[in-house]
Amino acid sequence: MNYLTKAIVNGIVAGTMLAGAAVAQTAAPAESGFVNTLMPQPAQMTVGSGRLAIAPGFAFTTDKSSDDRLDGAITWAMQRLKIQVGFVIQQAQPGATAPLLISVDGPGETIQGIDEDESYSLEITSQSAHLHAATDVGAMRGLETLLQLVQSDGQGFWLPAVSIQDSPRFRWRGLMIDCSRHFEPIGVIERTLDGMAAVKLNVFHWHLSDDQGFRIESKIFPKLTGEGSDGQFYTQEEAKEVVAYARGLGIRVVPEFDMPGHSTSWAVGYPELASAPGPFTVGHNFGVFNATMDPTKKSTYEFLDKFIGEMATIFPDAYMHVGGDENNGVEWKQNSQIQAFMQAHNLSDTAALQAYFSQQVLKILAKHGKKMIGWDEVMTPGLPKDVVVQSWRGFDSLAAGAKQGYSGILSAGYYLDQMDSAAEHYRVDPVPAGSDLTPQQAALILGGEACMWSEYVDPQVIDSRIWPRTAAIAERLWSPQSVNNVDDMYRRLWVESLRLEGLGLTHISQEDASLRALAGTPDIASLRVLAAVLQPVNFDTRGSWSESHGVTTLDPLDHLIDALPPDPPSRHDFDELMSTYLQDPAGHPDEQAELLEMFRSWTAAQPELMQLMSGAPLLVPALPRAQQLTELGTMGAEAIAYLSSGVAAPAGWKAQQMAVLDDAAQPIALTRFTVLNALRNLVNEVK
Amino acid sequence: MNYLTKAIVNGIVAGTMLAGAAVAQTAAPAESGFVNTLMPQPAQMTVGSGRLAIAPGFAFTTDKSSDDRLDGAITWAMQRLKIQVGFVIQQAQPGATAPLLISVDGPGETIQGIDEDESYSLEITSQSAHLHAATDVGAMRGLETLLQLVQSDGQGFWLPAVSIQDSPRFRWRGLMIDCSRHFEPIGVIERTLDGMAAVKLNVFHWHLSDDQGFRIESKIFPKLTGEGSDGQFYTQEEAKEVVAYARGLGIRVVPEFDMPGHSTSWAVGYPELASAPGPFTVGHNFGVFNATMDPTKKSTYEFLDKFIGEMATIFPDAYMHVGGDENNGVEWKQNSQIQAFMQAHNLSDTAALQAYFSQQVLKILAKHGKKMIGWDEVMTPGLPKDVVVQSWRGFDSLAAGAKQGYSGILSAGYYLDQMDSAAEHYRVDPVPAGSDLTPQQAALILGGEACMWSEYVDPQVIDSRIWPRTAAIAERLWSPQSVNNVDDMYRRLWVESLRLEGLGLTHISQEDASLRALAGTPDIASLRVLAAVLQPVNFDTRGSWSESHGVTTLDPLDHLIDALPPDPPSRHDFDELMSTYLQDPAGHPDEQAELLEMFRSWTAAQPELMQLMSGAPLLVPALPRAQQLTELGTMGAEAIAYLSSGVAAPAGWKAQQMAVLDDAAQPIALTRFTVLNALRNLVNEVK
Repeated sequence: MNYLTKAIVNGIVAGTMLAGAAVAQTAAPAESGFVNTLMPQPAQMTVGSGRLAIAPGFAFTTDKSSDDRLDGAITWAMQRLKIQVGFVIQQAQPGATAPLLISVDGPGETIQGIDEDESYSLEITSQSAHLHAATDVGAMRGLETLLQLVQSDGQGFWLPAVSIQDSPRFRWRGLMIDCSRHFEPIGVIERTLDGMAAVKLNVFHWHLSDDQGFRIESKIFPKLTGEGSDGQFYTQEEAKEVVAYARGLGIRVVPEFDMPGHSTSWAVGYPELASAPGPFTVGHNFGVFNATMDPTKKSTYEFLDKFIGEMATIFPDAYMHVGGDENNGVEWKQNSQIQAFMQAHNLSDTAALQAYFSQQVLKILAKHGKKMIGWDEVMTPGLPKDVVVQSWRGFDSLAAGAKQGYSGILSAGYYLDQMDSAAEHYRVDPVPAGSDLTPQQAALILGGEACMWSEYVDPQVIDSRIWPRTAAIAERLWSPQSVNNVDDMYRRLWVESLRLEGLGLTHISQEDASLRALAGTPDIASLRVLAAVLQPVNFDTRGSWSESHGVTTLDPLDHLIDALPPDPPSRHDFDELMSTYLQDPAGHPDEQAELLEMFRSWTAAQPELMQLMSGAPLLVPALPRAQQLTELGTMGAEAIAYLSSGVAAPAGWKAQQMAVLDDAAQPIALTRFTVLNALRNLVNEVK
Repeated sequence: MNYLTKAIVNGIVAGTMLAGAAVAQTAAPAESGFVNTLMPQPAQMTVGSGRLAIAPGFAFTTDKSSDDRLDGAITWAMQRLKIQVGFVIQQAQPGATAPLLISVDGPGETIQGIDEDESYSLEITSQSAHLHAATDVGAMRGLETLLQLVQSDGQGFWLPAVSIQDSPRFRWRGLMIDCSRHFEPIGVIERTLDGMAAVKLNVFHWHLSDDQGFRIESKIFPKLTGEGSDGQFYTQEEAKEVVAYARGLGIRVVPEFDMPGHSTSWAVGYPELASAPGPFTVGHNFGVFNATMDPTKKSTYEFLDKFIGEMATIFPDAYMHVGGDENNGVEWKQNSQIQAFMQAHNLSDTAALQAYFSQQVLKILAKHGKKMIGWDEVMTPGLPKDVVVQSWRGFDSLAAGAKQGYSGILSAGYYLDQMDSAAEHYRVDPVPAGSDLTPQQAALILGGEACMWSEYVDPQVIDSRIWPRTAAIAERLWSPQSVNNVDDMYRRLWVESLRLEGLGLTHISQEDASLRALAGTPDIASLRVLAAVLQPVNFDTRGSWSESHGVTTLDPLDHLIDALPPDPPSRHDFDELMSTYLQDPAGHPDEQAELLEMFRSWTAAQPELMQLMSGAPLLVPALPRAQQLTELGTMGAEAIAYLSSGVAAPAGWKAQQMAVLDDAAQPIALTRFTVLNALRNLVNEVK
């Protein structure tokens, strides 16, 4: 059975197709045939029994408010519906009768903020569908739900009868992309924004400067990009285009200019900003750099005043992110003038000096009408309460802030570069059940942001690092806390992954394209068998390897690890399959057959796989994985043979298998197997 | 054996790896292991026995001339080499010693023209590689050859010892894209230009206006796009960006503004240009429209003078294309004022009136420093000899022009929308062997252009329509006429196809992405088996179907036909496999086994395929193909059983199979099988 069919059947069988506690459990799905693949799940949904057909001639219309942004959003949604169903969706005159009516009360905020009303309702019967929202943004959220509701079978396409009342649990649901360590062209940013909107994220946090490159044009300080970007940066026109594009999707753009640390790229063209004499060059290595702005000079603040003023004309959002993270204080400690300043101003340590710096920056931001957001480190005594703290340290840091009255968003646990599973991210809650925060304190936690740091991310691999895992994070941030069934999340995640591919994202197709390039042939059937059960090692393992091998931002991201998606379907689905089988091996002949077929394919792939890999220079380092795959396949088949026959394995067999598993658990060519836990469980069941 | 491995082995075995007559045949390939996959083949190549390793530390340097364009071209090539080999390629200081030396005499023409020197030489020994060219453009061509020469095996990457002297057979090697019937975003244009440069094409012919849309901004006549584009057009900035991007790749940009026919989109905003009163609306249907410019009004020429003057500031090329095709004369015949004008000016028919129009346009072009290029119809008495005629009618039309002294380029036979095979395009020669042209006349035939008309092409499907078939046309236009072995062309085409994918083209990966979308599941193994032996019906069949079903430019291109590549590997390679087998069935056990395995897979796919297709609305129309695939598989297995056993088939068996083949040859869901000819040959061999 294929992943999707299985996922859908499981959804029906297990009755997990309805959202959490807030959603009415009804017997309706079986009646209409509706399979709930919504992601994120809505706050409230009641399922009826009817179907509204989408057949040629299907039309929509609008009433109430209308504006260019709403028109654009509806056109975009109807284009996608058209492509899904294969025929033109008609637009009826405003006020005319049509199966789909979209009613929006008004445009919403002129500059979208954290209080934007994103709620909507969707009432679908066998006669009509009615989407109602207070704002354009609410309508966008509802249109995405509408598209996700479309069902199909041999007879055609239809919408299920449902009644949905939906609004987000958190107001700040973001994705940060680091465009400094590796630059991402506008096209990548825009397709990512499309994906974000599809899963109802509403903040694009644009990390525009860091040690490895300054990525946005300043007309006042042209050397920022002229000398600090290796020629890769966004023009102001392009940045404005992104802001407008995001607004068209109901997404805010919060730019980040990291300071006082992570600022090497500023100092390349403007060394007077730094706390050491320089000269500075654009960083190509990773890790924490020493370059730090000089917080003691008036000229530093004059520079920042002009710069922030200029950026404020490009980025209309109420917030501007000023980083503040990972200042190692080395330059400050080595600079006698700064040391003297600290003494004169009674600043006992570099943290105190950074707090002083933050206070000055706050004034500049306020002058330009901006509120501050920064990483944990900005939270120092005396900080105004309207600063938002973004926590890479974790919930405890966030809770400590909330207890002092600070707003915050969570990013710890949502770091996409860590190569964690969607399930791991999904289990991280910005306000965990059982936290000791008062309701007022909990309300200060505005939401969270997935973070795509880009040491190992370029335009080719970024999609598979962000998607589909970010859809699971998006659900955590939108849906009720009670929506927390991991199996059901995965069932819907694979469906959402396909829908995201339909937006032009390449997270699925790039894997095969990369495997073809690595293999040097279009015939990659055997390599697919291996790749399907591999995933990248985690960030730290790769980081250590990179450091010892002198890897920089200039090295290509074209190795096997870069082709492999983190958390591929094989991991969770194989775990689930094995777990079902092991509950009662004798009672699960289908699962047993599926497992045996899988083990057979692992063993059968070996001859072709060895030949292919041994002739492809970039696959040669991973060659031991081909041998191990055969061993794992043999192990699995033997284990099932023992289990199903009831015959005990020979003495030493189990120990030998455990040694094989331990061996296979070692990283090779920066890859790890996805199936080892399940196999260990299988072997452990053998007598 | 997979396609590529087979192709490479065949290349070695058959000794076809060297280019045609101009290339020295040596025994060297076996010695160094070099497999020639160059596309296009160079004019002259001698193969030595050594290898130049490309290992970490590999460096390049330049001497002689240097400029920004050359630097950019080298950087681009070295980026691609880096990605292929997996490590950074070092740049040595100019003048320093490095394994790869690039010597360029000078930048070449300020505005690239038909006389640009594109020649280069490449001398590679086991010690060093030396690329020499007279111009930047020659260097670009040589860099592409260098990248195509890179070989690999389990030990790593290397360049073969070769001596290449290369220059093109034809000076005009183009690709036309119709951006009117369907608009293509800049990103699509740019990635197409990358592909063009990879196969040494040098003219991008940009069809910017037609009945279905006016696609470039005019600041003087803003209603051209304001009312004639449905909002989809290139700004002048974007067009200039494309021109600069193309120049960076050694590609000229020749814009086309089709007149006096195919001009509905002009008349939407400016009905006074037309020969009928209007009003006009943007065309969404296909075929020939009536809207035609009024050639009798002074105001028409005043408009064109201003417009062409404006466009001349954007497009620096010496040529401007003014279409001239398919004016049906209807509006002219119905307009009494135009009829009176014809009588007064002694213009006997609409052709004469169009000749009059052309003469006026010629003067305007000359005023703005432009030469004219137009389709066959512009060739009328009195036309100056510096006009270039682009022939959609064929070689005879072109030869007739050449005999009168007109330059021309061939497009008949290179229409990509026809869904012909690469082999069919490859066999079309702008100056066929044995033509009766004198050498002087033949020299007037400048080359050819592949044409991508866009009735059924959008950003998702365009790559698979252009690539890889256009690489075969590119070889026809660059390589010596004697390079004409179709089997060898296909062997190299599949390799080139993979290289083109590495540039970001989606012609391979989009097929699976589309199949996933059609099937609604990532598990498309069974659908792949069917899709691999299907291709789109030809243009006329689709055209008739579209007309009878009222299909317009607004309909989505998301059906099975749109997912299928024209001329997939299955066609030629299956033909070749079958032909080898049938030469002596008993003597080809490997081929027999391969055929039987293929037939088995067709039959085996059926249950899963039927289930998948019958649940997917957009695949339901193609459902009979699944049944037919099983029948074809059964037929093939039976035929081989009879052949290999020597037993005669029962009476009626052959007739029955022929009926099945005839039935399978009927279009279903706008698809056709690729394997029927070969199967017919197989069945015919059975006694």
